[in-house]
Amino acid sequence: MTETEKIAILNSKAFQTGFKEYLKVYVTAHKQQKIREVLGQRTRHFTLVLEDIYKPHNASAVIRTCDCFGVQDIHVIEKTQEYKINPYVTRGSAQWVDLYKYHQPEGSAVQLCFDSLRKNGYKIVGTSPKKESKPIQELPFDSKMALVFGNEHEGISEEVIENCDELMHIPMMGFAESFNISVAAAICLHELTSKALSSPPEGYFLDEEEKDRIEYGWFRDIVKNVEAHEAKFLREFLSSFNPQA
Amino acid sequence: MTETEKIAILNSKAFQTGFKEYLKVYVTAHKQQKIREVLGQRTRHFTLVLEDIYKPHNASAVIRTCDCFGVQDIHVIEKTQEYKINPYVTRGSAQWVDLYKYHQPEGSAVQLCFDSLRKNGYKIVGTSPKKESKPIQELPFDSKMALVFGNEHEGISEEVIENCDELMHIPMMGFAESFNISVAAAICLHELTSKALSSPPEGYFLDEEEKDRIEYGWFRDIVKNVEAHEAKFLREFLSSFNPQA
Repeated sequence: MTETEKIAILNSKAFQTGFKEYLKVYVTAHKQQKIREVLGQRTRHFTLVLEDIYKPHNASAVIRTCDCFGVQDIHVIEKTQEYKINPYVTRGSAQWVDLYKYHQPEGSAVQLCFDSLRKNGYKIVGTSPKKESKPIQELPFDSKMALVFGNEHEGISEEVIENCDELMHIPMMGFAESFNISVAAAICLHELTSKALSSPPEGYFLDEEEKDRIEYGWFRDIVKNVEAHEAKFLREFLSSFNPQA
Repeated sequence: MTETEKIAILNSKAFQTGFKEYLKVYVTAHKQQKIREVLGQRTRHFTLVLEDIYKPHNASAVIRTCDCFGVQDIHVIEKTQEYKINPYVTRGSAQWVDLYKYHQPEGSAVQLCFDSLRKNGYKIVGTSPKKESKPIQELPFDSKMALVFGNEHEGISEEVIENCDELMHIPMMGFAESFNISVAAAICLHELTSKALSSPPEGYFLDEEEKDRIEYGWFRDIVKNVEAHEAKFLREFLSSFNPQA
């Protein structure tokens, strides 16, 4: 078996369905129930994009916030900063949300990220205090939306401003010109998810196939020595097709 | 003039009104306008209480958040931690909100704080994931309310749980058991102030006397070498009563 053949098998639905059943034994019933509950509230209707965040504790707090609001995906544009996760602040939520990283030293990581989001049906909304930006309260909640947050110093880049579909801001009532980034992300998600949950748009929650795929990933993260289990299960899986081998 | 007499004069309305006019010359028109705008949106209807916060960047982010939502007062119960302000995270908002610290090594700082809040008409609501606590969405917004947030490790103390009027929580949809504290404070203030602003309860905004007093404090913070100006103005003030001296 070549390496390519092996990867194809590991990625096949048949293998993954079987291996998930195999791994289940190593996941407590309590954990399994929690996973199904959480999956039932997960959404890809809203997602966040972080552009070049400097402070790891800010980025990590955003991940934890997404987990708390049921937001499954976070997109990270890495231009100059490498996104590091701070284990204290996320409190283990990093393994529960999916991070997509875009890094393109020769081209545009923004374009790469936005192309992928648009292909998946997202409207892209940049957060910016500019005059033409809408208050968060006026954003519709019934279409798929990716909210872009910029870094602590300059906010979102000119490239993001030029390439997003709309600009949005949180109305400010004090002297500070902006919220801390993890606070801003939480306020936006609270506003949008509260409205969406009170009358969920079609496709707000994950479908069964998405839930299965995420559950498979989570089982893999939870079970210790998963590679050893995988090798063992792969041998069994192959021999079931070819008992003589 | 004795020191006691001097303090009485410095605290008199006549002195402060005059000195505020004197200081105004040193505050730009732009800043003065911003101050009046901000004061017009300030509230003491809601306030936060922080019990023994460990991480200065969390406490500082809470201060910045309060400024952004127009919340003027923050109460800090210091049992083991001394509340330090992190200048980077607050971005200067510490001088725009009023911090009240309660420290009582021999007695109960919680009691001291709660007595003072109750005397001022606040209902005290602790944030806790306990079963009997209400979701934040169910809290009324029309009575004065102080929300108590506990520290990053244990949450609010047993003493706070026993002595508050009600418990409240933010519904959680993920694996993380709690939000980061500054995020939690922001979500609660966003929920409550959004509702209150859409139909402000009587007394939600500050009265003119409160605005004047806060403005006086802010002018003092803004103008450099305020003590030298104060000494000069005090001489003028006294001589206006006693031109022969």
